[in-house]
Amino acid sequence: DFKRALDEVRPAFGIATNEFEGTRPNGIINYGPAFQKLYVDGQAFVDQVAKANRTPLLSVLLTGCAGSGKTALGATLAMESNFPFVKLISPEQMVSYTESAKCSRILKVFQDAYKSPYSFIMIDDIERLLEYVPIGPRFSNVVLQTLMVLLKKQPPKGHKLLIVGTTSLSSTILGTLGLERCFSAALTVKPLQSPDDIKVVLAATEAFATPEALDQAVQLVPQGIAIKQLLLVVEMARAGGDVADVARFGECIADYASTAGMADLEF
Amino acid sequence: DFKRALDEVRPAFGIATNEFEGTRPNGIINYGPAFQKLYVDGQAFVDQVAKANRTPLLSVLLTGCAGSGKTALGATLAMESNFPFVKLISPEQMVSYTESAKCSRILKVFQDAYKSPYSFIMIDDIERLLEYVPIGPRFSNVVLQTLMVLLKKQPPKGHKLLIVGTTSLSSTILGTLGLERCFSAALTVKPLQSPDDIKVVLAATEAFATPEALDQAVQLVPQGIAIKQLLLVVEMARAGGDVADVARFGECIADYASTAGMADLEF
Amino acid sequence: DFKRALDEVRPAFGIATNEFEGTRPNGIINYGPAFQKLYVDGQAFVDQVAKANRTPLLSVLLTGCAGSGKTALGATLAMESNFPFVKLISPEQMVSYTESAKCSRILKVFQDAYKSPYSFIMIDDIERLLEYVPIGPRFSNVVLQTLMVLLKKQPPKGHKLLIVGTTSLSSTILGTLGLERCFSAALTVKPLQSPDDIKVVLAATEAFATPEALDQAVQLVPQGIAIKQLLLVVEMARAGGDVADVARFGECIADYASTAGMADLEF
Amino acid sequence: DFKRALDEVRPAFGIATNEFEGTRPNGIINYGPAFQKLYVDGQAFVDQVAKANRTPLLSVLLTGCAGSGKTALGATLAMESNFPFVKLISPEQMVSYTESAKCSRILKVFQDAYKSPYSFIMIDDIERLLEYVPIGPRFSNVVLQTLMVLLKKQPPKGHKLLIVGTTSLSSTILGTLGLERCFSAALTVKPLQSPDDIKVVLAATEAFATPEALDQAVQLVPQGIAIKQLLLVVEMARAGGDVADVARFGECIADYASTAGMADLEF
Amino acid sequence: DFKRALDEVRPAFGIATNEFEGTRPNGIINYGPAFQKLYVDGQAFVDQVAKANRTPLLSVLLTGCAGSGKTALGATLAMESNFPFVKLISPEQMVSYTESAKCSRILKVFQDAYKSPYSFIMIDDIERLLEYVPIGPRFSNVVLQTLMVLLKKQPPKGHKLLIVGTTSLSSTILGTLGLERCFSAALTVKPLQSPDDIKVVLAATEAFATPEALDQAVQLVPQGIAIKQLLLVVEMARAGGDVADVARFGECIADYASTAGMADLEF
Amino acid sequence: DFKRALDEVRPAFGIATNEFEGTRPNGIINYGPAFQKLYVDGQAFVDQVAKANRTPLLSVLLTGCAGSGKTALGATLAMESNFPFVKLISPEQMVSYTESAKCSRILKVFQDAYKSPYSFIMIDDIERLLEYVPIGPRFSNVVLQTLMVLLKKQPPKGHKLLIVGTTSLSSTILGTLGLERCFSAALTVKPLQSPDDIKVVLAATEAFATPEALDQAVQLVPQGIAIKQLLLVVEMARAGGDVADVARFGECIADYASTAGMADLEF
Ligand SMILES: Nc1ncnc2c1ncn2[C@@H]1O[C@H](COP(=O)(O)OP(=O)(O)OP(=O)(O)O)[C@@H](O)[C@H]1O
Ligand SMILES: Nc1ncnc2c1ncn2[C@@H]1O[C@H](COP(=O)(O)OP(=O)(O)OP(=O)(O)O)[C@@H](O)[C@H]1O
Ligand SMILES: Nc1ncnc2c1ncn2[C@@H]1O[C@H](COP(=O)(O)OP(=O)(O)OP(=O)(O)O)[C@@H](O)[C@H]1O
Ligand SMILES: Nc1ncnc2c1ncn2[C@@H]1O[C@H](COP(=O)(O)OP(=O)(O)OP(=O)(O)O)[C@@H](O)[C@H]1O
Ligand SMILES: Nc1ncnc2c1ncn2[C@@H]1O[C@H](COP(=O)(O)OP(=O)(O)OP(=O)(O)O)[C@@H](O)[C@H]1O
Ligand SMILES: Nc1ncnc2c1ncn2[C@@H]1O[C@H](COP(=O)(O)OP(=O)(O)OP(=O)(O)O)[C@@H](O)[C@H]1O
Ligand SMILES: [Mg+2]
Ligand SMILES: [Mg+2]
Ligand SMILES: [Mg+2]
Ligand SMILES: [Mg+2]
Ligand SMILES: [Mg+2]
Ligand SMILES: [Mg+2]
Repeated sequence: DFKRALDEVRPAFGIATNEFEGTRPNGIINYGPAFQKLYVDGQAFVDQVAKANRTPLLSVLLTGCAGSGKTALGATLAMESNFPFVKLISPEQMVSYTESAKCSRILKVFQDAYKSPYSFIMIDDIERLLEYVPIGPRFSNVVLQTLMVLLKKQPPKGHKLLIVGTTSLSSTILGTLGLERCFSAALTVKPLQSPDDIKVVLAATEAFATPEALDQAVQLVPQGIAIKQLLLVVEMARAGGDVADVARFGECIADYASTAGMADLEF
Repeated sequence: DFKRALDEVRPAFGIATNEFEGTRPNGIINYGPAFQKLYVDGQAFVDQVAKANRTPLLSVLLTGCAGSGKTALGATLAMESNFPFVKLISPEQMVSYTESAKCSRILKVFQDAYKSPYSFIMIDDIERLLEYVPIGPRFSNVVLQTLMVLLKKQPPKGHKLLIVGTTSLSSTILGTLGLERCFSAALTVKPLQSPDDIKVVLAATEAFATPEALDQAVQLVPQGIAIKQLLLVVEMARAGGDVADVARFGECIADYASTAGMADLEF
Repeated sequence: DFKRALDEVRPAFGIATNEFEGTRPNGIINYGPAFQKLYVDGQAFVDQVAKANRTPLLSVLLTGCAGSGKTALGATLAMESNFPFVKLISPEQMVSYTESAKCSRILKVFQDAYKSPYSFIMIDDIERLLEYVPIGPRFSNVVLQTLMVLLKKQPPKGHKLLIVGTTSLSSTILGTLGLERCFSAALTVKPLQSPDDIKVVLAATEAFATPEALDQAVQLVPQGIAIKQLLLVVEMARAGGDVADVARFGECIADYASTAGMADLEF
Repeated sequence: DFKRALDEVRPAFGIATNEFEGTRPNGIINYGPAFQKLYVDGQAFVDQVAKANRTPLLSVLLTGCAGSGKTALGATLAMESNFPFVKLISPEQMVSYTESAKCSRILKVFQDAYKSPYSFIMIDDIERLLEYVPIGPRFSNVVLQTLMVLLKKQPPKGHKLLIVGTTSLSSTILGTLGLERCFSAALTVKPLQSPDDIKVVLAATEAFATPEALDQAVQLVPQGIAIKQLLLVVEMARAGGDVADVARFGECIADYASTAGMADLEF
Repeated sequence: DFKRALDEVRPAFGIATNEFEGTRPNGIINYGPAFQKLYVDGQAFVDQVAKANRTPLLSVLLTGCAGSGKTALGATLAMESNFPFVKLISPEQMVSYTESAKCSRILKVFQDAYKSPYSFIMIDDIERLLEYVPIGPRFSNVVLQTLMVLLKKQPPKGHKLLIVGTTSLSSTILGTLGLERCFSAALTVKPLQSPDDIKVVLAATEAFATPEALDQAVQLVPQGIAIKQLLLVVEMARAGGDVADVARFGECIADYASTAGMADLEF
Repeated sequence: DFKRALDEVRPAFGIATNEFEGTRPNGIINYGPAFQKLYVDGQAFVDQVAKANRTPLLSVLLTGCAGSGKTALGATLAMESNFPFVKLISPEQMVSYTESAKCSRILKVFQDAYKSPYSFIMIDDIERLLEYVPIGPRFSNVVLQTLMVLLKKQPPKGHKLLIVGTTSLSSTILGTLGLERCFSAALTVKPLQSPDDIKVVLAATEAFATPEALDQAVQLVPQGIAIKQLLLVVEMARAGGDVADVARFGECIADYASTAGMADLEF
């Protein structure tokens, strides 16, 4: 049934639902079983809300390190849900809003959702919505409390709601904030763990001219790299052209690994 | 007299009083002596306010871990009290209110209650009303102080008031906040502790086709699961249908136990 | 002269001065020497302000654990003072006021008092006026400073003022806040310490049908119970009737001792 | 010259300069050398400002424990200075002012002073002006900074200014706040240290009928009592009459020593 | 290709793009390989954004100690990019703006940039924009969060954006703030590390009359001096004339090294 | 050249430049080499800005303990600079301004300065401008950041600016605040260190009638006394006349040393 799920995934790649499009600039690459499991689990939640009568409210938290693909996964589930109401709550929509303006906007999305029979709300990058910074730590308690209440509030009778959140906050912090407890379930999105996964991703970029070049490139990539970073390094190696020279790819990935952008990698 | 109390409980299940209905989506299942004791104790407080002449003000705090059924129990007592004034104070009514707007609304409910000869106010999810977060800890001292004063304020002569509060805050935190001391009494709502309790709940869902399936399912459930979580897992296992396959139920409960939603379980 | 003082107390029980009435729902029971001493000392302060020429300002702080009877004692002294201006400052009058609104109201009471030749101001439940919570600790420094200044401010020439404050804050906290130093004197109101005291209180409730029942009941009560809690338990044991069954009284006091409401008892 | 100074003091007792009168309800008792030294030193500062050409600005801080007589000493110096501009800055004038309203009023007094050739400003009870509380500690930094700047600001050419401040804050706190450094000099007002001092004070009250009674009373007083407290206890012992019974005086002073009001005494 | 890059640099010295001119008062001196590497790397990012199709957004953080030349390097890259939209965000433009006014202005620059096909935004002196001070530490979380969101926000389809930030904050602080992670890459600008580098800089000032004087001067300079400080000391040594006497240069650099201005030097 | 500098200093004593006059009530006494070095160094900075073409912006921080003469030195440099724009920024001008009003005024002075070809801004008593208090520590970060940005902002092309700051803050605090790094250089103003220095100062006051009296007085002064305090004690010893009696001088300096005003002396 891995096969069947895969088949289901592919056609979906072309689907584009309003604001979610832009959050997934490089589409979705089915890079192997790790992704497949996440994707199938995510779809099960969508199905549950769509079909079951006694679960009007479900919420799933996608956690994982920076660039691991949380936003892209959530957006894909949203776009494929075919729910009549599908809406994104994202910090980019609210740059330099006051805390209370943020809360109003978030509340508005939920109130709109309560009017639709089936609704899908994605709350992206929760740490930025919360204005979280580990010094202190500081965060907007007003936004946090608003989210905590809305995550547990039942939609009106006969209406159903699925909420998908994404965050890079660690499980410890989420626990301390009490946020984890407000979600029905949590899924962890991992960085690329095996050479096989990495190879699928590099192949999908069509940046390497020959299978040999591809194999060499795979050798150069540290395991545990986030898919977003890997795709960026490929672009750097392309240097404006279509083909990535393996030597240049090696330089780029080395430079990269030595600077801030890779700070989160666990080799 | 367990029998008699049980009889008293059942007919009450059908009673629906305004806003309380929605807080008890799955009704009340009398899952055994642990519940029975709580229920009888709760009713004794209602009776005291209803009948005694020298107790114009009583307040009871329902504590217990997430999902243990505090809200459902409080709502049941409220609906069955037959008091002319029965009112819910809940954070869901006040999403993104300012602290002072919250206080005004809370105060308004009490002022309305003072006009009725018999009033029942349920203050649900006190930690959310307080905007409590353990980091700091931070909370709205304005809301806390408002509650503390109102919890001790006598209704006008000839009027009677019962206040039921619910919270998941630990006894330690409640003590430090000084909230516990403001209630006349406290009742602890426990998660499901014995296979017997769990069996009653699973049976009540009518999700398992045969007695054998039911027995197998009971084996799979970790003791100490909250009733709210258990009912959710049953729904997941139903996967949109009426019957829950035992195997799928096992998967769901395992998945569940490994993620955030189960964080509060004590196995 | 214990006798004489007692005589003085009794008739006073019927006196009712405006807002103070409601703060003493169960009247005053002269439960023995411990109370007698407090009451006589309190009256001495009233007399001093009433009669002496060189003490235009006196202030007394009543401290003691929750429910020990501070408010009732203060209210009794106020009602019996026969001063032309007798006023209560209480947090219940100022629910959800801003800090500065609280200060204005407090200041107003003092300004009114300065116009009367003899004034008695009772500041009830100072910890709630201060919005004190031990976490931090947090409190309204604006209210605290307002009280500190007003407690030491001389009334205008020829006017006299007695201030009685009540609080459950510990001596340590009061000292740190610097509040204790602002009062001319302090009296400690203790919970019920001896079986004799408890017996007087239980007898006064007339809840026990026979002297034997009364004696049995006294045995059941833990020493150090606050008078307010003891009176509440008697009501619970009455269960709406006039007579309290000793067995039920025992259950109630046991239940009670095991929950939050008794948290302050020192057995 | 002790004699001469004493003579100078006495007639001054009758002098009344506007607002300072009320701050010294019991006048000034020259209780011995300890007071004499303070008084002479204080007058030297007044003289310096009055006569010297090159000292347009001087400031003196009177420190000492609660009730030791700081305000009375400062007020006496102010009333006797015969400066054309003599003004009191006191927290009692600014109850529940905002921090910035306090600063405006303080600034206004200084600006008025700059218009007079000779000015005397007394800043009473600096800890209350600062809204100081040791928890935190918290205080109004706005008021503190305003005082610090004004204490060092030269009056306009040809104008002279003497500032006398009073406070019970410890030298350590004053140092940490940086306030001590802003004054040209500091004088410490001590509580009554010797039986001789106490006897002078008790004698001056004329409360004891015979020399023997006076001597007995002196024995009862703990050394280190503040003059303000001692005078209050005498009034209590008078119980509305003119004469204080020694026995009653003993009771009052014992009661007093055991409660809050005496918290600062060092026996 | 060091040669080629050098050639590319020189003509650029004359280019002046609006507001960037003033940030580079002493132009750019190609003082050797350390600078050359930084400059080439910086240009590679400009090229990537200019030419590649799949990298619409790149961001580079220039870190390094005070005066090491971060601003000058960033300004040079900006001026040479020939992008139609080149804009500076600098704390000097926003002196005494409120936090939210700062955010509005920052946001405005980004919104303008989104309208141009190719945009270059330089965010100079990020620690000052953040109002960072290590005590606390304190900083404007509102500005920080605004930057964090804007640094990751994709420009609209078909538009490209390069962001260059500069800061003296340590890597540790940047990591804790979570800022480092928001940039695609980071480059470290070092102070002058070798006598060769120092000699190139001193020679470029044309302050020393003879090669011998130049060599002597080089000996006097501590390694690890920031280029900005070195250029200032040369000016001091010129004392208003064109030529710097070596002896005076020695005094100046010694004075300098012993005072605050050199606090960051690591000898 | 000590001689030459001295000659330069003297005539300057008569120069009076607007607002700076009042900050130097006792003029400048050239008390020896320690002062001479400071004075010459200060003038070098003035010359550098006046004559050099490539140093449009210089800033010098005068640090030193309370009363050591920082303000007087800075004011002297300002008055003697003969720059067309010479302006004082001082906390005394901004008593009880809000933080943002302070920033506006500071900014205004700089904006005015940018219009003059040569400008001299003295920022006096930076700790008071910052409202610094070591408890916390607390300070106005808004004012701090404003100063930090303005201290590094280049004046417009063709304009030159010298900034002199004064402060008693320790080097450690200045470093932590990051203020020291914002100045081009720092000079430390020391208290009077040797009997020779003290003798010059005492002689300059012309308070002692004979050389012997002068010598005796010098013996009485603790080394390390600040010049401001020494001059005040002389005035106290004069007691309104012209001549200071040595005995009285001894008493005054002893009194002084034992109280707050001398807290900063290091004997
Ligand atoms: N299977 C995949 N899963 C997730 N992302 C994928 C996948 N295949 C390709 N991508 C691409 O990888 C990138 C993943 O970035 P995305 O923004 O989703 O990560 P993220 O975890 O949300 O990052 P951040 O922590 O910065 O929010 C996107 O550009 C997406 O188009
Ligand atoms: N005997 C019972 N007691 C309580 N709840 C029951 C019982 N039987 C069934 N339920 C159902 O179990 C659920 C209990 O959830 P409820 O919201 O009351 O828990 P809670 O403790 O208030 O949770 P939370 O900590 O999230 O506020 C409700 O859906 C309720 O209808
Ligand atoms: N001798 C007595 N002294 C005090 N209260 C008495 C006495 N006799 C009877 N009572 C009753 O006991 C109760 C005492 O409660 P009261 O509110 O005065 O206590 P409290 O110490 O102010 O409590 P809290 O700490 O909650 O403010 C009142 O109902 C009062 O009528
Ligand atoms: N020699 C004296 N010195 C000071 N006060 C005296 C003296 N003789 C009599 N008194 C009286 O003693 C009292 C001293 O109280 P005062 O308010 O001055 O003390 P304080 O130190 O300012 O107290 P607080 O710390 O409360 O401000 C006054 O009533 C004053 O009239
Ligand atoms: N190769 C170079 N790189 C950088 N700056 C140079 C170079 N050559 C000359 N300069 C000059 O050196 C000075 C560097 O100062 P700049 O302000 O750029 O440093 P900064 O690291 O941004 O300092 P700050 O930490 O104060 O922001 C400028 O005056 C610049 O004109
Ligand atoms: N050579 C001198 N240097 C400095 N001040 C002198 C000198 N000769 C005389 N003075 C006088 O000494 C006093 C020095 O006080 P000044 O206010 O300058 O000290 P400060 O260090 O700024 O003090 P503060 O720490 O209080 O700001 C002034 O009155 C000044 O006129
Ligand atoms: Mg994301
Ligand atoms: Mg609940
Ligand atoms: Mg009370
Ligand atoms: Mg006083
Ligand atoms: Mg820079
Ligand atoms: Mg100064």
